[in-house]
Amino acid sequence: MTKGVAILGSTGSIGTTALRVLARHRSRFHVAALTSNANATLLAEQARATGAPFVGLVSNDANVPDAWCLGPDALVQAAQLPDADIVLNAVVGAAGLDATLAALRAGKRVALANKETLVVAGALATTVAREAGGEIIPVDSEHSAILQCLVGRPRTQVRRIILTASGGPFRDWSRQQLEHATLADALRHPTWQMGRKITVDSATLANKALEVIEAHFLFDLPYEAIDVVVHPQSVVHSMVEFVDGSVLAQVGVPSMELPVLYALTHPDRIDEPAIPPFDPVAASPLTFERVRLEDFPALRLGIEAGRAGGAAPAVFNAANEKAVALFLDGALSFVDIARAISSAMDRLGGLPGTNREELLAADDAARDHVLTQFKG
Amino acid sequence: MTKGVAILGSTGSIGTTALRVLARHRSRFHVAALTSNANATLLAEQARATGAPFVGLVSNDANVPDAWCLGPDALVQAAQLPDADIVLNAVVGAAGLDATLAALRAGKRVALANKETLVVAGALATTVAREAGGEIIPVDSEHSAILQCLVGRPRTQVRRIILTASGGPFRDWSRQQLEHATLADALRHPTWQMGRKITVDSATLANKALEVIEAHFLFDLPYEAIDVVVHPQSVVHSMVEFVDGSVLAQVGVPSMELPVLYALTHPDRIDEPAIPPFDPVAASPLTFERVRLEDFPALRLGIEAGRAGGAAPAVFNAANEKAVALFLDGALSFVDIARAISSAMDRLGGLPGTNREELLAADDAARDHVLTQFKG
Repeated sequence: MTKGVAILGSTGSIGTTALRVLARHRSRFHVAALTSNANATLLAEQARATGAPFVGLVSNDANVPDAWCLGPDALVQAAQLPDADIVLNAVVGAAGLDATLAALRAGKRVALANKETLVVAGALATTVAREAGGEIIPVDSEHSAILQCLVGRPRTQVRRIILTASGGPFRDWSRQQLEHATLADALRHPTWQMGRKITVDSATLANKALEVIEAHFLFDLPYEAIDVVVHPQSVVHSMVEFVDGSVLAQVGVPSMELPVLYALTHPDRIDEPAIPPFDPVAASPLTFERVRLEDFPALRLGIEAGRAGGAAPAVFNAANEKAVALFLDGALSFVDIARAISSAMDRLGGLPGTNREELLAADDAARDHVLTQFKG
Repeated sequence: MTKGVAILGSTGSIGTTALRVLARHRSRFHVAALTSNANATLLAEQARATGAPFVGLVSNDANVPDAWCLGPDALVQAAQLPDADIVLNAVVGAAGLDATLAALRAGKRVALANKETLVVAGALATTVAREAGGEIIPVDSEHSAILQCLVGRPRTQVRRIILTASGGPFRDWSRQQLEHATLADALRHPTWQMGRKITVDSATLANKALEVIEAHFLFDLPYEAIDVVVHPQSVVHSMVEFVDGSVLAQVGVPSMELPVLYALTHPDRIDEPAIPPFDPVAASPLTFERVRLEDFPALRLGIEAGRAGGAAPAVFNAANEKAVALFLDGALSFVDIARAISSAMDRLGGLPGTNREELLAADDAARDHVLTQFKG
């Protein structure tokens, strides 16, 4: 019997990567569901190629097959399908939260590429997972690396984790240069091919803040035990330092295929000749730099939000999402993204966040705040 | 109850490192035995400091306490002590073999820094360990790294291991320059402080050949699955590539304290604040180079000996030991070490090696051959 995989966000960068990986491993996995936000054309193609029995399109569209499930509820429906053993949540943004919770409540494995789930509602999601027997397996390359380094070792033996950051396209830009960074500059990521939103997050380092918060919840580690180091080559995907001072690192070519595959097979590994093997000589030299917190305030703000807890991470995330959307529309400058986040945090960072409703209210308030204060 | 550790070779580089580590962890370990080849003065000091109940000196010496055990049998006696839960075998050369076998037969953990045990008699030692319930835990930094990367994963998930080599002091010397390498040059190791014999082995890369053979037996891997890459900084201690293409690496400052400690605690880890933490920024850049097999024939010869099996690895090891001894005495040139090994392999590499007696006979024959053909 093959395992069923529901892919939420199948037409995005992670979704298409997952379909490429799954096509190579049909003896082990089948596609149980596909959903897309708005790309009906590619979704139809994917549905034909995989024979997925469930197809969902979030943004209503008149010209799609009758059998498709339409509207925002498609995500939660796909996440609960009995045939879906694993739910790969590759939805962008806070829209992925309910589907993650639904899958966890159904006791499923969630292969989580939607980091906002844990950022907005980390305590909630981990509690639901624990109570319902579901599990969250990260798909981010950094968290997958940490998980791979941790397998077989109790958390009590961990002293700290070191998340690597490529540093993004502005790694060596001065503060003054950053004031004039354009959208085109921000989308020119040196090592990873990703969607536009996450690429901008990599340029502000907001992405790394989201990953720090995600790591806090995924691995049950205090923020003091989570460090970030800049590693421009994106070959060392992250590291774990154990209590005896030993460090394990997971390394490899920058490709999302491995973290996607590993999230499906963890803790096992299956033979995968198609992922290019790591050649240390070709990858040499590997360099590491201190992260410039003072010049990339989004990272600092995100870590502060994580430490503050409550709704602060949700406010950080929502303000960032809205600010990046405005930046992508040409309505905000690059450095205004962090300013918008900072303003939202100052105003709304103290909101309560003990349940889904409070968290989503804080999320809404942060978006409104950024829109009102910064649009145009 | 604390665990008893017998340290064979306590006055050498690994032995003194182990005593430094054990002194920090007296709540978990006590010294059950100390032995030295010939350094009676330091041994007496160590015996006083640790209160070790068993003290052995291999080279007979009239002026030592009556209670000491004298002569070559001291090693095997120490290895069998009921109070010794762990036998740290840090004896240099083939002289360590019988003590390893005795400890394994007694069902003990052997923390093995004596790589010659596995090179000379790998099949024998692993068979004895399996049958008697003993276990071999490597102390070499490279094999400790591999073991740490493997914990919790079945061997069937391993595609290959990558042993790192510092490249030694002659890493960037041309073949012509190597013809004129002196003893002083060879003893100038760039990253590790070690004994003289192993330092010369690092210069010829014979050491890496011994480690390849050791890895073959320790991890039950074919030679095709064991690669060597030069890594001058000695920070990445070795790597494991799994069947899905993922690579785990163990990294840290070049210090033998961690592999010694880990061999005592494996698969657990204990808090050890005294080992300097790994700072990736300070360690940057990390580089990797192809190993120059054509210019360092000792490595190629050793791997060939491993593949040939039988007594060939024992012949390789004995010829190398004798040739290095002659080199240290000024009786051989640097490049003659590999020539001596090659000559011994040509003549004696096909000898049988199915039991201890045949292996020791091959060892003797190889030493004689080198002495006869190359002395003076």
